[in-house]
Amino acid sequence: MEILCVGNELLIGKISNTNAQWMAKRATALGVIVKRITVVSDDVLEIANAINEVLHRKSRFLVITGGLGPTFDDKTLAGMAQALNCKMKVNRKALALVKEKYEALVNAGRLEKVELTPYRVKMATLPEGTQPLSNPVGTAPGVMMTSGEALLIALPGVPSEMEAIFEGSVVPLLKKKAGKVAFLETSVYVDNIMESSLAPLIDKTMRNCPQVYIKSHPKGEERKPHIELHFSTTAKDSRIAKNRLEQAIAQLSELMEKNGGKIGLQKIEAIG
Amino acid sequence: MEILCVGNELLIGKISNTNAQWMAKRATALGVIVKRITVVSDDVLEIANAINEVLHRKSRFLVITGGLGPTFDDKTLAGMAQALNCKMKVNRKALALVKEKYEALVNAGRLEKVELTPYRVKMATLPEGTQPLSNPVGTAPGVMMTSGEALLIALPGVPSEMEAIFEGSVVPLLKKKAGKVAFLETSVYVDNIMESSLAPLIDKTMRNCPQVYIKSHPKGEERKPHIELHFSTTAKDSRIAKNRLEQAIAQLSELMEKNGGKIGLQKIEAIG
Repeated sequence: MEILCVGNELLIGKISNTNAQWMAKRATALGVIVKRITVVSDDVLEIANAINEVLHRKSRFLVITGGLGPTFDDKTLAGMAQALNCKMKVNRKALALVKEKYEALVNAGRLEKVELTPYRVKMATLPEGTQPLSNPVGTAPGVMMTSGEALLIALPGVPSEMEAIFEGSVVPLLKKKAGKVAFLETSVYVDNIMESSLAPLIDKTMRNCPQVYIKSHPKGEERKPHIELHFSTTAKDSRIAKNRLEQAIAQLSELMEKNGGKIGLQKIEAIG
Repeated sequence: MEILCVGNELLIGKISNTNAQWMAKRATALGVIVKRITVVSDDVLEIANAINEVLHRKSRFLVITGGLGPTFDDKTLAGMAQALNCKMKVNRKALALVKEKYEALVNAGRLEKVELTPYRVKMATLPEGTQPLSNPVGTAPGVMMTSGEALLIALPGVPSEMEAIFEGSVVPLLKKKAGKVAFLETSVYVDNIMESSLAPLIDKTMRNCPQVYIKSHPKGEERKPHIELHFSTTAKDSRIAKNRLEQAIAQLSELMEKNGGKIGLQKIEAIG
């Protein structure tokens, strides 16, 4: 799976890319590997190029966020249409979804009458051959389309809307894709040993436990080493995964003690 | 400029990509446009492919973070060498920098003696034709190399180390690249008007103030619209930039009042 985030606000460092992190965490917990995250600006050609590059890399599953709203700079759908060489057209199902939202606002006394202005119809103007995905939180529907063997899904950039459509429409697809697997991770903290001294011990442990991935993250200062060791594995069930992690931690722990480091074990908890 | 972040921890959603945000903000403040942010895993081929794609897009300036340390999964330099088809070789200048760090630890009584183990020499084993960049905070030096007209710079992933080398070695290059320009941004908050009703007003303002970019960010719920309007511009000096932003805000403010929205003006402050 790949993630493509559209939005100038990410490229000027205005906001942190919490959408990418949220989706990556959620997909990983379901056993799906996120291979790449890309961020591009609100520009039709940039979006189209990024989508074409994803297809060129033969990635089969792309989730795009951002750029589905009513303003001029919401350009994701135009970018998809350009990448896949198809026309933009008002989608009847999408228009019904958008209309429904404004009718609800009229009923709630928030709006005088339903006016389907060009800016509102824009949210229902989709590349031909796409399928709208209901947005339980906001107005702009998500969009799903295929291109060859690839599935492309576009979600709004507002986090609550992205998360709701992701849970409702994307998670079932990811579960099907991943099958029944468990991803487990845990962290162990180590003091008073430098990362360069730890490196050969990690190598040894990973040779003995080849299904466990161990990554060191230096957290302290050079003079007072404090390192997070992150252990992760994907297995058929969480019992096997847990056993693997415990074994790897025990091995590394033993090697560490021989080298004078102190290891602070933490409880192993499953994600998702 | 493009940013490439290397690290599985970003693709499993373990951490937020604060490095990308920090660099994007810093480069933008200097007047440099960040065109793309890419995140790939700790895999030589993935890193090499991502670098080749940057070069293929004719981007002239790439900053890479992550993957420069002593452990097995620090693979950025091998990825650079593969992308640019050059050999890895112990760099004399880089080895001197690494050795200096361990000597300082010996002098501080933190280490018995300087042992240049293969894991430590790894941090000084660079693609041929590269130049090490001194790391004032940690051990692994940064790395700079050219490929045709493109400049590639690799920095460690530890934020304090990345920031220190960025300030010391990258900022002077970006300043030279951007020339004397000022990027200014400010936000204005709007209540009680829907984004779809705001869209035509933004369009009108941007037609009248074509050098100001206005982006709306919905923050509230559907029933209680609360929207951030972000105004930004890049100009020769901050006075011109400030004038432009003030003019655009005044225009939109006037249009808003006619449409029954309340606008909450904020002080305009320069970045950087």
